[in-house]
Amino acid sequence: PAVLLLPGDGIGPEVVEAARRVLEAAAHAHGLRIRFDEVLIGGAAIDQAGDPLPEATLEKARRARAVLLGAVGGPAWDDLPVDRRPEKGLLRLRQALGLFANIRPLPGFVAAYGRSPLKPELLRGVDLVVVRELTGGLYYGPRARRALEEGGEEAYDTLLYRTHEIERVARVAFDLARTRRPVGQRRVASIDKANVLTSSQLWRETVRRVAADYPDVTLEHLYVDNAAMQLVRDPGRFDVLLTGNLFGDILSDEAAALAGSLGVLPSASLGGPVPLFEPVHGSAPDLAGRGVANPVGTILSAALLFRYALGHEAAAAMIERAVEQALADGARTADLAGEGEGALATEEMTAAILERLR
Amino acid sequence: PAVLLLPGDGIGPEVVEAARRVLEAAAHAHGLRIRFDEVLIGGAAIDQAGDPLPEATLEKARRARAVLLGAVGGPAWDDLPVDRRPEKGLLRLRQALGLFANIRPLPGFVAAYGRSPLKPELLRGVDLVVVRELTGGLYYGPRARRALEEGGEEAYDTLLYRTHEIERVARVAFDLARTRRPVGQRRVASIDKANVLTSSQLWRETVRRVAADYPDVTLEHLYVDNAAMQLVRDPGRFDVLLTGNLFGDILSDEAAALAGSLGVLPSASLGGPVPLFEPVHGSAPDLAGRGVANPVGTILSAALLFRYALGHEAAAAMIERAVEQALADGARTADLAGEGEGALATEEMTAAILERLR
Ligand SMILES: CC(C)[C@H](C(=O)O)[C@@H](O)C(=O)O
Ligand SMILES: CC(C)[C@H](C(=O)O)[C@@H](O)C(=O)O
Repeated sequence: PAVLLLPGDGIGPEVVEAARRVLEAAAHAHGLRIRFDEVLIGGAAIDQAGDPLPEATLEKARRARAVLLGAVGGPAWDDLPVDRRPEKGLLRLRQALGLFANIRPLPGFVAAYGRSPLKPELLRGVDLVVVRELTGGLYYGPRARRALEEGGEEAYDTLLYRTHEIERVARVAFDLARTRRPVGQRRVASIDKANVLTSSQLWRETVRRVAADYPDVTLEHLYVDNAAMQLVRDPGRFDVLLTGNLFGDILSDEAAALAGSLGVLPSASLGGPVPLFEPVHGSAPDLAGRGVANPVGTILSAALLFRYALGHEAAAAMIERAVEQALADGARTADLAGEGEGALATEEMTAAILERLR
Repeated sequence: PAVLLLPGDGIGPEVVEAARRVLEAAAHAHGLRIRFDEVLIGGAAIDQAGDPLPEATLEKARRARAVLLGAVGGPAWDDLPVDRRPEKGLLRLRQALGLFANIRPLPGFVAAYGRSPLKPELLRGVDLVVVRELTGGLYYGPRARRALEEGGEEAYDTLLYRTHEIERVARVAFDLARTRRPVGQRRVASIDKANVLTSSQLWRETVRRVAADYPDVTLEHLYVDNAAMQLVRDPGRFDVLLTGNLFGDILSDEAAALAGSLGVLPSASLGGPVPLFEPVHGSAPDLAGRGVANPVGTILSAALLFRYALGHEAAAAMIERAVEQALADGARTADLAGEGEGALATEEMTAAILERLR
């Protein structure tokens, strides 16, 4: 199988290289051979080709079996309008590939070995996943900016959802809930602001209708403000959270904070023929080029690549076990190391994981 | 001065009655006499008058010196469209009174005596305030819902901001920053999603321009997803957070979770001739009528009423000290009581605070 690497900006190239080595080793252990190709996206692509998603990048992505991305963006491109920024390359790629469902797991072991800000008793039993709608909502609706006659400007974005967009991502969430827990414990929490937003009322009604096909899964509806509160107060109450694009962006980062570092969290974007895998963290310009970034989020994304793109559960589980073991044995990059604990460089952390692949 | 009470729904009437008693006592202690009037809003107003904001309610609000509100909404009205719900009464009131700036403090003592889910060392030095834009953004933009030819429906809401709407709330945030900390420590964190949203780019540019008038206040810009993470990881880094309407709704509830209970947090809505004060919590239908709700959020809102509507700092501080002292002495309603600790009823908690007014 062919995997396209899109290192992107900032620490992207460093963490993608780390994950590539782990992918290769896990494939080798299972008698698989992965072919890698690598192209530009984001700020790096703007600088070289004048476009955050050059046609050649999109073409290669379409022909790959899966895409592994690092991160995009950084202060060098901060003054560009939203339609020409590095981030736009990623947004266009997600849409062009039809990746409407973004899966962001907070696995229990990550919460346990990270440096969570929460009291330890609140972390017991935490094992949740955010299913975020990824190609609609406020990120993609009509937008404009214009001068006003009376002086000043106005600017708007539109949060628009259609029934079928909500339905298909809801099905992903309910199907996923079925794979995670035994009958009687399957739960989906759908997040909206249906007491204020018209689009949220359509969201809520549609999710309720889809839920009727899954009588074994318990559905609850939470307002987004309440969800933001509950995630901190009692994260163990959640299993699958189903959200629109913007709410999922906010809540998944909040959930990630519970792990103590964004650096450890993976994501999978599904829905089209070519899935995309990327860590939840960003390009972290302050760490770039120093060899100290945490590669775990990207390495766990590589595990998701085995699971969701190649259907290879054994290789996925092998990587996840190796990461869990390395963390349990005390391997820590700077973001996770406590005061006075020695911190590993990116390469050392990667080596610690590679050693434990078995 | 005349204060209009709007008890609203659920636990609203119970907590407003508690706060009324404290207002009266603190006024009395300072030789002030407050006249109270009380009218319907929200679901109660829908049931009696067919409108969540009857004309008579709005008229009385316009003529009052300040409004003290409990909460609106509840499951009884959950199937109504957004434009006819109890919440709409509150949204229309905020807009009719021109209350564009909502102030939501998380005072340090509340974080310390609550039941915070955070590790204690992270709470040291926490003392922040969210300044939320309250009459614009996604809550008030054009919206519609319609059937699609190909089947299903679409629904949208619009996030729209104009320069002057951003400017005026930014000034409130910067002015407030000046009153809170000495020169050298004044900070405003402006929250947006300027890497994706056009409206956020206007937000960021406008806030930056306003900041030029406040050289003594340090401005930083945070993406909303990053802010949601930082609030949990390191809440002590924040002083004033400046947000749009929706982001402020989400982040202020998240910040409130750090206090261990929504029940203790107050808010003030300013910008027009008649300010509005209300607790951050909702109508909590499950607690309604049982006499167990936490009145502290509404009582601290009464303190803000003295401060911002009556310009009476001494009475405000008297109430805040009494609350702080009652909590320090172990007075706890059920939401704050630990396992096996006795919990006070609403009236007992109110009495504990009244006793300490001095
Ligand atoms: C980089 C940015 C456009 C992106 C998003 O908001 O989707 C990121 O925050 C994420 O969560 O994947
Ligand atoms: C009740 C609701 C409309 C309201 C809001 O979202 O503004 C509430 O959540 C709040 O935060 O005051």
